[in-house]
Amino acid sequence: VIISGSDDVNATSPAPAIDGTALTRRLEQLGQIGRTAERGLTRLALTEADRDGRDLLTAWMSELDLDVEIDAIGNIYGTWHSGGGKPVMIGSHIDTVVNAGIYDGAYGVLAGLEVVAALRRAGVQPRIPLTVAAFTNEEGVRFTPDMMGSLVVAGTLSLEEAYAALDADGVSVGRALNEIGYRGRSHPTEHAPQLYLELHIEQGPVLHDEGIRIGVVEGVRGISWQRLVIHGEANHAGTTPMHRRVDAGHAAARIQVFLRDLASSNGTLHATVGSIALEPNAINVIPGEASITVDLRDTEDRLLTEAERQLATYCRQLEEEIGVAITSRRLARFAPVVFARDAVDQVEAAAKSRGLPVRRMTSGAGHDAQMMAAVAPTAMIFVPSVDGVSHSPCEHTVPEDIVNGANVLLDVTLGAVTSLPPAPNA
Amino acid sequence: VIISGSDDVNATSPAPAIDGTALTRRLEQLGQIGRTAERGLTRLALTEADRDGRDLLTAWMSELDLDVEIDAIGNIYGTWHSGGGKPVMIGSHIDTVVNAGIYDGAYGVLAGLEVVAALRRAGVQPRIPLTVAAFTNEEGVRFTPDMMGSLVVAGTLSLEEAYAALDADGVSVGRALNEIGYRGRSHPTEHAPQLYLELHIEQGPVLHDEGIRIGVVEGVRGISWQRLVIHGEANHAGTTPMHRRVDAGHAAARIQVFLRDLASSNGTLHATVGSIALEPNAINVIPGEASITVDLRDTEDRLLTEAERQLATYCRQLEEEIGVAITSRRLARFAPVVFARDAVDQVEAAAKSRGLPVRRMTSGAGHDAQMMAAVAPTAMIFVPSVDGVSHSPCEHTVPEDIVNGANVLLDVTLGAVTSLPPAPNA
Repeated sequence: VIISGSDDVNATSPAPAIDGTALTRRLEQLGQIGRTAERGLTRLALTEADRDGRDLLTAWMSELDLDVEIDAIGNIYGTWHSGGGKPVMIGSHIDTVVNAGIYDGAYGVLAGLEVVAALRRAGVQPRIPLTVAAFTNEEGVRFTPDMMGSLVVAGTLSLEEAYAALDADGVSVGRALNEIGYRGRSHPTEHAPQLYLELHIEQGPVLHDEGIRIGVVEGVRGISWQRLVIHGEANHAGTTPMHRRVDAGHAAARIQVFLRDLASSNGTLHATVGSIALEPNAINVIPGEASITVDLRDTEDRLLTEAERQLATYCRQLEEEIGVAITSRRLARFAPVVFARDAVDQVEAAAKSRGLPVRRMTSGAGHDAQMMAAVAPTAMIFVPSVDGVSHSPCEHTVPEDIVNGANVLLDVTLGAVTSLPPAPNA
Repeated sequence: VIISGSDDVNATSPAPAIDGTALTRRLEQLGQIGRTAERGLTRLALTEADRDGRDLLTAWMSELDLDVEIDAIGNIYGTWHSGGGKPVMIGSHIDTVVNAGIYDGAYGVLAGLEVVAALRRAGVQPRIPLTVAAFTNEEGVRFTPDMMGSLVVAGTLSLEEAYAALDADGVSVGRALNEIGYRGRSHPTEHAPQLYLELHIEQGPVLHDEGIRIGVVEGVRGISWQRLVIHGEANHAGTTPMHRRVDAGHAAARIQVFLRDLASSNGTLHATVGSIALEPNAINVIPGEASITVDLRDTEDRLLTEAERQLATYCRQLEEEIGVAITSRRLARFAPVVFARDAVDQVEAAAKSRGLPVRRMTSGAGHDAQMMAAVAPTAMIFVPSVDGVSHSPCEHTVPEDIVNGANVLLDVTLGAVTSLPPAPNA
């Protein structure tokens, strides 16, 4: 175990270590709340199931002698007040998608509780506060935008905008917070930490495929979402010669193949066409219009911008060649996030000290960490997802990896709370 | 004017010729029945609008001293009884698609009336009967299958099957025929003619593009319809590496591009992917399933079969390359129809005698003629559609072409009714 700056640690205490059995038990117990018939789990943000999950989490925090505080957007903070200044924060979320697994989000929060328990068992006395946080509505299934709670902490989304978001039944976030009794008083922006750490399953297959135990996350890929609408000419499939066609569906297919080739010949670009609609969408009519979505992700903003440029150039070529007209509308654009080098290095060092095979990687999924990175040095730790499955009842991480990830989180936290000087509160 | 075997024609009569003004007037008058707000025309089979159209048509037949008969599937026959045996039949249909133009179908039937009028004016006395026919439900919009009336005449579809067909509201053809008062007694198969002629707008751009006035139709392209379902793996668009994807949408796009290339490098094949559905069809999820329709058409059965085989081979290649599984279900298969060589030659000779530029071609759209070809020598005459538009309020054929086509029909009919020996009735 690496304990850097461990001058407050009693050398005769046992080395801090995660209790894997306790962590697994918590994951399974929280995973029973919102359970559905299909072996899955649905605990959408600010529903009764979410409230029940929050009640269990806050009870656990109190059992660990953490001071529980709820902020105005419903984020939950359990703080070990020790020393002074801004806390080190371990965070993630406990809301889920529809028919989810038990790890995503919950793992990072509950591992935080076990870090606290392990530090207490080892007799560690932090120099600065340590907070375990659960952010509201990370998944964004019921309310848009996703990562809402951390967005408000980061000041990127105002509290008023967040309150006004409506679900499909017209219920606002403000009203839903009141209904489940989780609308607190403190302003979210007051909770910016001195260091933010998030442990998460990878939700992709890279670590699993390569037999690597710990992913050292250097940042989050930027996202470019656009909708392309291709205007062609609907016409009779039997009577229109091939050379005479202005087939919007054909143009859509060409763009799909182009993007696939572009991403496959490029180290970091990910490109997906997930949604298509043809008009009139009839077996014997040449499509007169096609609408497709394009999801581009890359690690650097200049690479993302270059991919967007190449797509636009190809669309102009298709307009010339096929005679279609292609319009593009931006749906979302998030620049890549690069985590603090020191914090990332500490994760790598901690994993190597435990003899765990590591690789540096970039997250392709969004996490609260990418929002928190705007207000604090941030790092993430990934553990393997079996076969890369996530957002599914089949999501699984083996117990050994669950414990490995939490021990790395423990070591980095221990180093931080015992070495970082107290920082003034925001 | 070519009048072959004209021993029954009084040499002092004026040469038979179509009255273009009368024909245009009839087209416009029938085109008012079923008119909609958007300049279009909707006269679906066996609706009240269709009944009104039928009432007008039968009134016109009576004015021309034709004997009107309705058969058991509602086909309308107006016959000039002269001589004996099976008639020469000029036919098409007066039902329309939704928001149609005024020419499709109606042109062939109303030109038949003007042929009768022209022959009467010229004092021609046919050696055999001449019938103008309008077949029930050629378009197949309200009831399936299309070309229903001629299918029953050809004996390919039984009267009982036709009666049982239901529209979207559960109304059967049998009931709809009763409701509009057009369920006659004679069996459709008794109406097989000695020669069948159909005049139609091209519904495609070939004649228009090439500046040709008359299309000599040698047959109807065969049709192969299938639905391909591509099974891949739905996965996260951000976390799944490109090489790890089993993207059903990508496979669908590759098939589209393959079919386009196949048809473009082939003289006669037409290939269309008109309909696509992705699952789950979300912007940030790699498609786990794609369903596409494939419409292949060709002039010869061996060519159609070869295209089907090449598509199947390509699907097997994609299964290997991408890891998807592709299943295929046949939705429809009609072998190409080849019209009687003599009848086709007569159309070409008649058009050339009038000094009209002609080209031989194959119809890519379905017509009653392809069903009638099973029971009688058959030929079709095409005239240009401006810009290839059809099944649209913008469908248009210029008056000169309307008259040219009807005159070619007149000349071929005159040749037949004055030269063919009486044939025994069925």
